[in-house]
Amino acid sequence: MGGAGVRVLVTGSSGFLGQHVAADLRRAGFDVTGFDLRPQPDGSIPTIVADLCDLDAVRRACRSRDAIVHLGGIGDVDVATAQPELATRANVVGTTNVALASTEAGSRVVYASTWEVYGPPQRQPVDESHGCDPGHFYGATKLAGEHMLRAARCSGGLATVVLRLGTAYGPGMRPNTVFSRFAAQARARRPIVVHGDGAQWRQFTHTSDVSRAFRLACEAGVDGAVLNIASDESVTIRQLAALVAGRYDVPIAFAPPRPGDAPPSRISSAAAARVLGWHAEVAFEEGLSALLETGDAEWRASHRPSDGRSDLHAEPARL
Amino acid sequence: MGGAGVRVLVTGSSGFLGQHVAADLRRAGFDVTGFDLRPQPDGSIPTIVADLCDLDAVRRACRSRDAIVHLGGIGDVDVATAQPELATRANVVGTTNVALASTEAGSRVVYASTWEVYGPPQRQPVDESHGCDPGHFYGATKLAGEHMLRAARCSGGLATVVLRLGTAYGPGMRPNTVFSRFAAQARARRPIVVHGDGAQWRQFTHTSDVSRAFRLACEAGVDGAVLNIASDESVTIRQLAALVAGRYDVPIAFAPPRPGDAPPSRISSAAAARVLGWHAEVAFEEGLSALLETGDAEWRASHRPSDGRSDLHAEPARL
Repeated sequence: MGGAGVRVLVTGSSGFLGQHVAADLRRAGFDVTGFDLRPQPDGSIPTIVADLCDLDAVRRACRSRDAIVHLGGIGDVDVATAQPELATRANVVGTTNVALASTEAGSRVVYASTWEVYGPPQRQPVDESHGCDPGHFYGATKLAGEHMLRAARCSGGLATVVLRLGTAYGPGMRPNTVFSRFAAQARARRPIVVHGDGAQWRQFTHTSDVSRAFRLACEAGVDGAVLNIASDESVTIRQLAALVAGRYDVPIAFAPPRPGDAPPSRISSAAAARVLGWHAEVAFEEGLSALLETGDAEWRASHRPSDGRSDLHAEPARL
Repeated sequence: MGGAGVRVLVTGSSGFLGQHVAADLRRAGFDVTGFDLRPQPDGSIPTIVADLCDLDAVRRACRSRDAIVHLGGIGDVDVATAQPELATRANVVGTTNVALASTEAGSRVVYASTWEVYGPPQRQPVDESHGCDPGHFYGATKLAGEHMLRAARCSGGLATVVLRLGTAYGPGMRPNTVFSRFAAQARARRPIVVHGDGAQWRQFTHTSDVSRAFRLACEAGVDGAVLNIASDESVTIRQLAALVAGRYDVPIAFAPPRPGDAPPSRISSAAAARVLGWHAEVAFEEGLSALLETGDAEWRASHRPSDGRSDLHAEPARL
């Protein structure tokens, strides 16, 4: 199905990724409605302000939609770790409700899952046939959501696409990401602090690439696919630190490793290329540069040079 | 740890399996408290009447317990299919709460999971390394509970044992099981109705064997084990029908197969034998005979010969 006139509900539409995905779908001609606990910050997407745990509200929202792009829930690993019960309600009960309401409405679901469902890699690259053993609350709740959607597919004929996303980066990132921390340290003219040896890597995937994957999944009409969506580029934290340090001409400092970060995996997105024709288009250095430029402008507008000091004693950054 | 004085909380203690497990632990000298939405039918176990979704109530109940035997939640496949949102709350949010409260209290958790987490077998016999892809709401919620406990184990050091139970049978079974239906049909002097060809089998496991597995898991102090608990005996539905029909001298009739029954798997409990010294001790014919005898006495006490007719038009039985 093409974009024009296709009615899509985007859950989590006021969140970091949801805003990008909703805006991209709207630009492509989809008739987009948001669903979030908060209204959309810039008001560009009409938004149903409600809770995913409210089955009746989810039912009303899913009626007459061709597709539900389900990004809602707790997407912040730190929040899920600190409040697993909240994450279980939002991510598992919420996804069960989306599964039920979408089955009743005859809508397709495109679900935002994560590469973190795999857990420590048993073999690499990790494709979609790799077993899932996350061992942390965030991944466990996202994996549970996949299983609830699959149950609805097997028992009720729900059409589903599951996108297991690499670590997304782009404008509007949360302040506890490694990008935001490094940028804040550099702009405050302080050393960039790398925890551990910085050799751990991530396949950082730009929000525009992530958004395109959701759009392609809405357009393609495939059913039952589970697809990794991650850039092929592996970037170490040390490389990221060097890029930021070079740009702002600040040194790099090393601090003890922090526990709880997922070990790096080499994620293959070959299936997404085959099924959706998707591959990441934004080279990391370009994406990072654009991100820092946008951030610099915002920072200059809101900071005096002496600000930013408080960042230095804050918690280590989330990758 | 031995039974004497060890403080155990049994969730779901007023349910079919919970009553057996709680009674068995008490007989073995454990200091048993129940936790259930309903008081225990016979009042033999002091019971905290509360909801697993109430984290504060679960926290209070888990304090000062050495072990939590967690059977609470929706254990009826039909109820989970009809009300997936209820099953998600009870089985996933409930288990997250048990995981959190037990981690805080320093208690071990012995969790009642199910062979149905595996889904259609990819190879047989199915041991614990077999992948999990349930494809139905009941199995998905029980699997999600396993992953939440594992997250608490990896992140908070929670000690856990997961028991993946075969289909349990014994006194007090729900009226929608194939046992209860066949017995009701036979006692009403009507044909026993087998749906499909009756070739599908189950490793029916007696409640006394299931209870012993929980007791051994409480006593053994192992951590991190995931163990199948199923009788080695495979019994087809046709065999079960023949045993019941022979005892009551009624014929067998065949009806169209019913959708939704899990396909049979050959489940290996070799790991439970190795780790806990567990194997099923009750031969199926003996266990069935005792079950029917108990049921006959109850039936005679409450029925006139013309009763029971309504069972014939009821829904097909759950295996």
